[in-house]
Amino acid sequence: MSALVEIPARRGRAARVAAGRHVRVVNTHGTQVIDTWAFAARDPSEWMSMEASRASFLRLAAAVGDTFVTNRRRPILTLVEDSSRCAHDTLIAPCDPERYGLLGVAGYHDNCRDNLHAGLAELGVSVPATPPSLNMFMNIPWTPDGQLAWGEPVSAPGSYALWRAEMDLVIAFSACPQDILPINGRSGRTVEGHFAIE
Amino acid sequence: MSALVEIPARRGRAARVAAGRHVRVVNTHGTQVIDTWAFAARDPSEWMSMEASRASFLRLAAAVGDTFVTNRRRPILTLVEDSSRCAHDTLIAPCDPERYGLLGVAGYHDNCRDNLHAGLAELGVSVPATPPSLNMFMNIPWTPDGQLAWGEPVSAPGSYALWRAEMDLVIAFSACPQDILPINGRSGRTVEGHFAIE
Repeated sequence: MSALVEIPARRGRAARVAAGRHVRVVNTHGTQVIDTWAFAARDPSEWMSMEASRASFLRLAAAVGDTFVTNRRRPILTLVEDSSRCAHDTLIAPCDPERYGLLGVAGYHDNCRDNLHAGLAELGVSVPATPPSLNMFMNIPWTPDGQLAWGEPVSAPGSYALWRAEMDLVIAFSACPQDILPINGRSGRTVEGHFAIE
Repeated sequence: MSALVEIPARRGRAARVAAGRHVRVVNTHGTQVIDTWAFAARDPSEWMSMEASRASFLRLAAAVGDTFVTNRRRPILTLVEDSSRCAHDTLIAPCDPERYGLLGVAGYHDNCRDNLHAGLAELGVSVPATPPSLNMFMNIPWTPDGQLAWGEPVSAPGSYALWRAEMDLVIAFSACPQDILPINGRSGRTVEGHFAIE
């Protein structure tokens, strides 16, 4: 196994992954949502698409064995193993400065959108928009009549999801700094996560 | 009521709508999915966001009274009335050439992505990506465990949804040319829809 790389609390990090390699994303403390994006290495305007992926695997959230696809319908990441007990959310937008304004925050608040673009910039990558994110370890339950809720974390410390890269790609993570809604726990404590390329 | 404007079968059409006006979208034959997008008139890189809207109204599909928001979390369209009996889908990507390739179509097939950009181009508008669409009259049922399915149409001919513009905006429609999956009916017949600005 490769060394674990930290996704610092409230920050973003990105990495290049070759086709066929695996990415292990570890919920180190069991409470931390990791917003995740993936882009084709050869052209980052091709990105992992939540809406095309749901149309492909026909589920609100991926099951082990399901493959996410890009906005050009090409396979990009397959969920190979998952010890987290969590249906990684595909429905909810990454947080952004405007979101925190609506939640009553005055002034700047760390946010996943800025973390995405900062993480990519460290690799010299820029993208023309903010795609919908795959919200790993984020518990957004639905009811039979389609109501959603901000669930609390349900993963054990150290649990992980293992993904296979289906193309050469850039993966980007944000350790979500949401400390108002309970998605990272009611305490508002936001912490680091880890990943490894294997 | 203003005159009805045709959204031609398998084609796109866009229009400018001032804040406070209403847009009536009519399912003329009762069977036709109308993929819909909306963009801020002053800056079309601000668009109606399915992922931010679900986070706002906390439902898989909007109810009457719910407001869709943009990728900057600003209100853009409110569902004011709905006679269609249909939970307008927010989950599934608009169709595109690659999708039809995967469905076995050889050569070009009309598609909602191209219809979006062609409709906008007639107004001199271009956008840097294809946002997730609001799929009006599209019946995508979910099960309690999160499985999705390609439902058949459930709206009556002439049924409509009425929307209020919450900002000056550009609205774009595509009469979805999907004739392989049953979302426009098992016959594969794709037809026109209509809209009016009131």
